[in-house]
Amino acid sequence: MSAGRPRAVVVVTGSELVRGDRRDANGPYLAAELGRLGLEPSRIVIVGDAEAELEAAVRDGLEADLCVLTGGLGPTHDDRTVEVLARVTGRRLVVDEALEREIERVSRAVAERLRRPYGDFAGGVRKQASLPEGATALGLAGTAPAVLLQVDGRVAVALPGPPGELRRLWSKVVESGPVGQLLERVGAPERRVLRFFGPSESAVARALDEAGGEGEGLAVTVCARDLEIHVDFVVEPGGEARAEALESALRDRFPAELFADDERPVEELVLQACRSRGWKLGAAESSTGGLVAARLTSVPGSSDVFVGGVVAYANEAKEAALGVPRELLATHGAVSAEAAEAMAVGARERLGVDVAVAVTGIAGPGGGTADKPVGLVFLHGQSPETAAAREVHLPGDRDDVRARATALALHLLRRLLIQPGTNARARAG
Amino acid sequence: MSAGRPRAVVVVTGSELVRGDRRDANGPYLAAELGRLGLEPSRIVIVGDAEAELEAAVRDGLEADLCVLTGGLGPTHDDRTVEVLARVTGRRLVVDEALEREIERVSRAVAERLRRPYGDFAGGVRKQASLPEGATALGLAGTAPAVLLQVDGRVAVALPGPPGELRRLWSKVVESGPVGQLLERVGAPERRVLRFFGPSESAVARALDEAGGEGEGLAVTVCARDLEIHVDFVVEPGGEARAEALESALRDRFPAELFADDERPVEELVLQACRSRGWKLGAAESSTGGLVAARLTSVPGSSDVFVGGVVAYANEAKEAALGVPRELLATHGAVSAEAAEAMAVGARERLGVDVAVAVTGIAGPGGGTADKPVGLVFLHGQSPETAAAREVHLPGDRDDVRARATALALHLLRRLLIQPGTNARARAG
Repeated sequence: MSAGRPRAVVVVTGSELVRGDRRDANGPYLAAELGRLGLEPSRIVIVGDAEAELEAAVRDGLEADLCVLTGGLGPTHDDRTVEVLARVTGRRLVVDEALEREIERVSRAVAERLRRPYGDFAGGVRKQASLPEGATALGLAGTAPAVLLQVDGRVAVALPGPPGELRRLWSKVVESGPVGQLLERVGAPERRVLRFFGPSESAVARALDEAGGEGEGLAVTVCARDLEIHVDFVVEPGGEARAEALESALRDRFPAELFADDERPVEELVLQACRSRGWKLGAAESSTGGLVAARLTSVPGSSDVFVGGVVAYANEAKEAALGVPRELLATHGAVSAEAAEAMAVGARERLGVDVAVAVTGIAGPGGGTADKPVGLVFLHGQSPETAAAREVHLPGDRDDVRARATALALHLLRRLLIQPGTNARARAG
Repeated sequence: MSAGRPRAVVVVTGSELVRGDRRDANGPYLAAELGRLGLEPSRIVIVGDAEAELEAAVRDGLEADLCVLTGGLGPTHDDRTVEVLARVTGRRLVVDEALEREIERVSRAVAERLRRPYGDFAGGVRKQASLPEGATALGLAGTAPAVLLQVDGRVAVALPGPPGELRRLWSKVVESGPVGQLLERVGAPERRVLRFFGPSESAVARALDEAGGEGEGLAVTVCARDLEIHVDFVVEPGGEARAEALESALRDRFPAELFADDERPVEELVLQACRSRGWKLGAAESSTGGLVAARLTSVPGSSDVFVGGVVAYANEAKEAALGVPRELLATHGAVSAEAAEAMAVGARERLGVDVAVAVTGIAGPGGGTADKPVGLVFLHGQSPETAAAREVHLPGDRDDVRARATALALHLLRRLLIQPGTNARARAG
């Protein structure tokens, strides 16, 4: 990315993260947001609650134009982010009284709900309301404030670690004056995205190379995610023509595999396609165990289209809840094209829906045989107009197989409902 | 953590990682490995292919006893890890001729398979065989070597970025002489975990403080995760008595809320409890949309206990697939204690299971009213022996409410099936 953009550093604190007990989600989220806004995310640092490490990370982070700290804002002694920020910038910690009253209000409600004396909370409230001199609170998530501090023309921001809270408060950071001024210095780079389902990552990378590849003013990332290939362009002034050429080359090379040129996930496209036809949707799942339904219902407002699903994990559930004939299961097995079709038919009947998708497979690690190895998955989709079936062998462990089978089910629905190429916007020019 | 353990730093390079396009898996893997071996993972740094950033990260990393670099070992110009390692340590790059022959052998086979002249590869082979003076190669993954370099009594290791290759070569690193000497200096620390459901994070932290808190030889992490509180002890020699005292204090203070003293997640405890009673399990979900079933089926071997679930998102699905009476929904609404109970009863009947849990609620952002605001969730569980119901108001956005309601459903099942305190191992002594 261009050297002209303001640098941003993300410092993530969490002992469980630096020990590898959990994977951090905040760093990637913030880095993507920073890039989208036109800053250059140059480093993500994960440290624990060892004070010297945190202090070094904050000190280095403050050399960037924007340093975003996450985690370590709780009420307990090992939540040290604000204290370290004060020490590194040479500021005293001062109780912000308006903030203290606000946190107290929240804590009193919690105390009441838990039927505990407020006195148990008072120390934590005072701690969470103590900010480096000159810092401002940008709002609360629970009892933790987002904190913004300007230091010699640079900006430091501290946000709580729970991802939901962080995301909610991040919008306040973006709207704040000091960050607004930083963003005014740059135009956000233009971002273009192309989403493919079908080609391999290396086929897409080769097509990009053959079309000239990235260069001055254009960075391109190719990333495989649950069988989708996501291509992201970051276009700076001067890179437009190159971006246009590469985008055209990919559109021409994989016209049927391009399913989106925006960030909408496939579950949203499926729901939208059903909605526009007035069709109701349902799912019948075995090996994916509810993940197809969970992805569809993750979209706000999905309830007007998605009626429900049946997780028919055992054979008796396939019979009882979906009406799959026992003989069919005995003859072909629960992991078969026949079972997938019968499950989809059963879901349409039992749930009273127009469109249904069914998945049955072997997620592993156990349950595989020579004939039907781990990773074998059958899918079937049915609408009032048409039907589609697939048999695939998926690589990976149990989680991979389940996630990929879920993606396949959603894309099978998409192709059942949407003509290839009609979903992505018509190209300009 | 004790200052006595050798410090380890992980430096991850990858433009797509620092831009947040993909989540890094290598940092957490290596950190967990390093901790298991008795080193102290103190920092994970993610940088892109900007040379100055990479150089700064390597320079800082070399201050640790062990610095593990991942990524940037490929044959192309933007793979700079080894070159930067040489520059930072003031070493020349020298072609390792034995290594070059080895990489050439691999590359000739690739060239043949792709039907391309070997000449296309020769430059990359020479580049990948060029190591800092004094470094040794520990083996190949594809054409990329693992590289080990000793610098002033410290050890730097470079590994390829693809997780499978990294994991394969990591074992060679652990077996190598220099790393072996480092590991001989330490024994692996003892780890203890306590898992609570019920108390607040601050109540647990206060109980720890009152019992004396952490100190020499003992580090304690308290972490809230979807309504569970996870307490992790890392115990060094000399910290055992303190650890014992703190653990006893927590066990005595929250005997009914302690649900595990190992890493098994609640879904595994629920499945195990059903298995030991010979009971079959099912779920009926509205607002969680399949997440309860997905967590239960994430456990390998769950199919002997978990028969299936019904995701009854729309009222018609609650009627059709679970037999919830239309009048009940009209009188009490789909989000009500009565609906939750009828869903659980329906799931037992329709799925033919012994134990069922039902969840209905308002995940938001839409759908809330003054009477029934976003975050309101009703749960009901039923076994052949007993039943339990809960009404809760959950904070957070749609994803938070769904994840927390899922955790509540699993813990409601756990408490239905397991007497409080009987699951965690009896205390020694």
